[in-house]
Amino acid sequence: MGTTTNNRDDHHHTINFSAPRGFSKKLKSNLKETLFPDDPFKQFKNEKPSRRVIKGIQYFVPIFGWIPNYNLRLFRYDLLAGLTITSLAIPQGISYAKLAAIPPIIGLYSSFVPPLVYAIFGSSKHMAVGVIAACSLLIHTTISEVVNPEEDPALYLHLVFTATFITGIFQAALGLLRLGILVDFLSHSTITGFMGGTAIILCLQQLKGIFGLAHFTTKTDVVSVIGAIIANRHEIKWITTLLGVVFIAFLQFTKYLRKKNPKLFWVSAMAPMVTVIIGGLFAYFTHGEKHGVQIVGHLERGINPISIQYLNFNSKYLSAVARTGIITGFLSLAEGISIGSSFAVMKNEQIDGNKEMVAFGLMNLFGSFTSCYLTSGPFSKTAVNFNAGCRTAMSNIVQAVFMALTLLFLAPLFRYTPLVALSAIIMSAMLGLIDYEEAIHLFKVDKFDFLICMACFFGVSFLSMDVGLLVSVGLGLLRALLYVSRPATCKLGKLQNSSVYRDMEQYPDSTQIPGILILQLGSPIYFANSKYIKERILRWIRDEQSISLSKSDLIEHVLLDFTGVTSIDTTGIEGLIETRRLLEGRGIKMAIVNPRIDVMEKMMASHFVDKVGKESFFLNLDDAVGECQYSLHKSQPNFDVEERGFA
Amino acid sequence: MGTTTNNRDDHHHTINFSAPRGFSKKLKSNLKETLFPDDPFKQFKNEKPSRRVIKGIQYFVPIFGWIPNYNLRLFRYDLLAGLTITSLAIPQGISYAKLAAIPPIIGLYSSFVPPLVYAIFGSSKHMAVGVIAACSLLIHTTISEVVNPEEDPALYLHLVFTATFITGIFQAALGLLRLGILVDFLSHSTITGFMGGTAIILCLQQLKGIFGLAHFTTKTDVVSVIGAIIANRHEIKWITTLLGVVFIAFLQFTKYLRKKNPKLFWVSAMAPMVTVIIGGLFAYFTHGEKHGVQIVGHLERGINPISIQYLNFNSKYLSAVARTGIITGFLSLAEGISIGSSFAVMKNEQIDGNKEMVAFGLMNLFGSFTSCYLTSGPFSKTAVNFNAGCRTAMSNIVQAVFMALTLLFLAPLFRYTPLVALSAIIMSAMLGLIDYEEAIHLFKVDKFDFLICMACFFGVSFLSMDVGLLVSVGLGLLRALLYVSRPATCKLGKLQNSSVYRDMEQYPDSTQIPGILILQLGSPIYFANSKYIKERILRWIRDEQSISLSKSDLIEHVLLDFTGVTSIDTTGIEGLIETRRLLEGRGIKMAIVNPRIDVMEKMMASHFVDKVGKESFFLNLDDAVGECQYSLHKSQPNFDVEERGFA
Repeated sequence: MGTTTNNRDDHHHTINFSAPRGFSKKLKSNLKETLFPDDPFKQFKNEKPSRRVIKGIQYFVPIFGWIPNYNLRLFRYDLLAGLTITSLAIPQGISYAKLAAIPPIIGLYSSFVPPLVYAIFGSSKHMAVGVIAACSLLIHTTISEVVNPEEDPALYLHLVFTATFITGIFQAALGLLRLGILVDFLSHSTITGFMGGTAIILCLQQLKGIFGLAHFTTKTDVVSVIGAIIANRHEIKWITTLLGVVFIAFLQFTKYLRKKNPKLFWVSAMAPMVTVIIGGLFAYFTHGEKHGVQIVGHLERGINPISIQYLNFNSKYLSAVARTGIITGFLSLAEGISIGSSFAVMKNEQIDGNKEMVAFGLMNLFGSFTSCYLTSGPFSKTAVNFNAGCRTAMSNIVQAVFMALTLLFLAPLFRYTPLVALSAIIMSAMLGLIDYEEAIHLFKVDKFDFLICMACFFGVSFLSMDVGLLVSVGLGLLRALLYVSRPATCKLGKLQNSSVYRDMEQYPDSTQIPGILILQLGSPIYFANSKYIKERILRWIRDEQSISLSKSDLIEHVLLDFTGVTSIDTTGIEGLIETRRLLEGRGIKMAIVNPRIDVMEKMMASHFVDKVGKESFFLNLDDAVGECQYSLHKSQPNFDVEERGFA
Repeated sequence: MGTTTNNRDDHHHTINFSAPRGFSKKLKSNLKETLFPDDPFKQFKNEKPSRRVIKGIQYFVPIFGWIPNYNLRLFRYDLLAGLTITSLAIPQGISYAKLAAIPPIIGLYSSFVPPLVYAIFGSSKHMAVGVIAACSLLIHTTISEVVNPEEDPALYLHLVFTATFITGIFQAALGLLRLGILVDFLSHSTITGFMGGTAIILCLQQLKGIFGLAHFTTKTDVVSVIGAIIANRHEIKWITTLLGVVFIAFLQFTKYLRKKNPKLFWVSAMAPMVTVIIGGLFAYFTHGEKHGVQIVGHLERGINPISIQYLNFNSKYLSAVARTGIITGFLSLAEGISIGSSFAVMKNEQIDGNKEMVAFGLMNLFGSFTSCYLTSGPFSKTAVNFNAGCRTAMSNIVQAVFMALTLLFLAPLFRYTPLVALSAIIMSAMLGLIDYEEAIHLFKVDKFDFLICMACFFGVSFLSMDVGLLVSVGLGLLRALLYVSRPATCKLGKLQNSSVYRDMEQYPDSTQIPGILILQLGSPIYFANSKYIKERILRWIRDEQSISLSKSDLIEHVLLDFTGVTSIDTTGIEGLIETRRLLEGRGIKMAIVNPRIDVMEKMMASHFVDKVGKESFFLNLDDAVGECQYSLHKSQPNFDVEERGFA
């Protein structure tokens, strides 16, 4: 190509070899893409200072954004939604607190303060704040490693508050440091597998309550739990078992109704509360306790007591507590944020993940000061809130007010709630989380995603929740690194009667130009794949030359299409220089087509452009092919003459 | 676009919507790309079984490939090269064994068996096998954590053999499992920083020998070593210091000569041996020992004794030993393979990294059975071998034979070698490894590479070798993950009088088509970046709409150029569906241009194509723009009429 530059005049457009952007400009742009991809401060530009302050307050404390325009019409919707979610919050609070092995009243407290905090700082309109099942169980299994909740319930409870405090700090810090990026690494497949596995072990756990067993295992894996049931089978009580089956059938029936007629969502939303009331009445009038039907027991009247003085940072427990706080914090963020944003998408809105993290963090922080444990935006409750027609975060305030009234006046009434009713509520909720259809979908579309999902599912069911999760996230990262270290390359051919070049495997009617090999590279070229790309290019050429037997078809030009190469590092440039040297040794010329701006800057800064010459760069595949064909004809004079003879 | 399909007839080429490739075909192709990117078994295809066996043996035992054609002419070159590297092997063996705190004779043993093994199994023609300085020091610092080499030298030595054994197993396993991919994650920047940092601490270590200090620290970091020198400054002996300075000056002068006149490379290659001989003569005739010049001391005559019975897998030491084995194994692979392949590139050849790993592994495995410690292909020795004109791995056999002769007859002569001469040799070798020019180059080209390099340099110098290395590799991985989670996107504009679309920032003369936003995506779209890509697309549209004030310029079509998107996973497809829904809510149509084969397969399998309709896919940007413009005109009848009025 070096000898044919005189031929280039008829091309209008050439590569832009102008000076690279400055370092600070690039750094700023990279930092912005990494930490502020949604450009949250755009709205402050071109505003007066006074407006900026107001907008800033509204940005950090979203309630000031919507409360000035709030009116009675909106409140009617929010009141109804708030009432509905409160009716769900009471049974869920009691049951999930049981899962976490803490007093049931804590579950009720957790639906008073956190929803208030979220209503002030949260930006989602549909999120309903409450406790979540999977994390409740995870808290139980992790903290009971260091303190037995039956032997020292007070210390255990204090450690749960401490874990919640750590969750709060962790979540707020992630949000403030704009590290929402971390949550992106929990893939959809991991969450599907985790939900399914958790649902399985939670359902099995509930068999204790359904069968009315007195003895059980503290482990969560499938094998231990089934073993414990078999070992204690003589304790199975027919009356609780019957009650349990009836309750589950009732709850599942209401779900079926909702599925058939989405307008009846309130039937299934109210069903857990109805179950609790009927169960309580049954236990009260039949003196169920005497027949072996275990009940919740005494519930103190009154709102949340202060718990800040109980936070316990004793180094003996700190490692387990911090681990609990961070893992549950991470999981509850993943659940809450993905749910919040999927409901926002339905209403054509968007949510700022990092801001949500700060709101979640503050909610758990204040929660840990006021006798609450971990809260998030659980899927079921948020869906009910959405379907009940909530308009703003006011529904959370309504929930908090009704919960406060319940705590002040009605709490003692719930003492007769039979444990079997709670087990039935949890089991029924969990059955909906086993998303086998999604697993089948994953299997059909992407086998590696399916593997990630199954690793999490089986890891959670047969080993433990944290191991399953870590293995699955690890597989996801491994996949990300494989993507990076083995980027796809393909051979391009020309589509007939056009100047378009496409993958020859994908478009079998495209044809290769004799003597020219066009390769499309993808992904950044850098240390993790530069050696691979070098070897892959050489293999393409070997494969090519073993096919073409006629001498005139020998590859003389390799065109590398850089359209998909988003960046390059120094090792990558070294690799290109080596590749070029190896190709030159075989009499093959290498040219680069359409390098992007980042790549071009690196190539200029490292003097790669000077080394290989500007004539090896092309803006456009068609130009490059034209140039190469010209030089091919020049280097094969006989062929050229023959062709002229025919003309 | 859905309404304008009648307009599509005049396009010759459309997207290929044919059935996806089968799962097994895809899996096979992916596994091949990941583990066998160089397609090593291609040569066995289309061969008779008998030829296959021969080719197979030649593949796994490369000596059978070249020995049948070996002749005396080649041997003349290899003999000279072998002699030259032996003269380097003797002083290096003694000095580096001192670094590893093992008897000097072990260093000599290590240049007998391993070169023989490498000559049989290795595929590089230029590699000269020998011990390496950085790993010797690393062995010392890591194993002395569990056993003090001065208190129990025998146990310490056995643990060094055991570490070498583990290195061998580890390297061979990596090669057999085709995990050469792991070495790719040690970037050029990390190696530069590691070499520089190691050179600094090795030079400082040598000040003990140069100053003739009796007491010193066992730590390696800059602060401890300088502190130890200051604390023991009363022990500094002028005679050894003088000798040291003279030796270093001599060695550096020979290097300077080589730099001025590359033909004089043998002067600098011989210089260490000359230093040892002159130093020995000086110590012998002046009775240096009495003047405080420490000497090497007694060296046993005879070749390597068997050491397999000394391998010690006591669990008390195993963790430290395994760590040493794996880290040094990894590092020595990285050094050896990168050097082997860079010399191969100079001669227009290629090296199979995985095969080299097996050869290295076998060499260390047999080494650990025969009183050798860790060996690799050190840069200095390999360069000398190359410059001395070696033709095949026979030079390593020559080295082994001369080393055997030395061990059998000459070893005792080296007892008078002064330690200061060894220190001078190490120091002089290390000074060449501080590649500040490369660091400046990194700073200029890529700031993140520079950061990775500096992290390793300062980590190694001020903390410890393994911490520095791990931090630097961790930064490299972080960068890889950032690449993956924040892929570059850009807005494309049309170049005048052409059908070519390019980045508008890079080509400021390109123009945007009113009402149409063309975005180029890069890298795979999947769980780690699908949310980012969604937000980034929405931000492009927001930015766009805040610029265009006139109503007729409002964006109605977003074209996503998928040329650079090498693959997609289920989360990525979900993200695209969400993006499409959000855009539709704003009255914007989304189309996908030129999806690659992997992406198309996933989109078909997940029914994405059915959901969005085939009319939203285009093969080519220019077709897509034409179609969009047509639908724009149809949707703006007034505008259309006006235009016609002008025509």
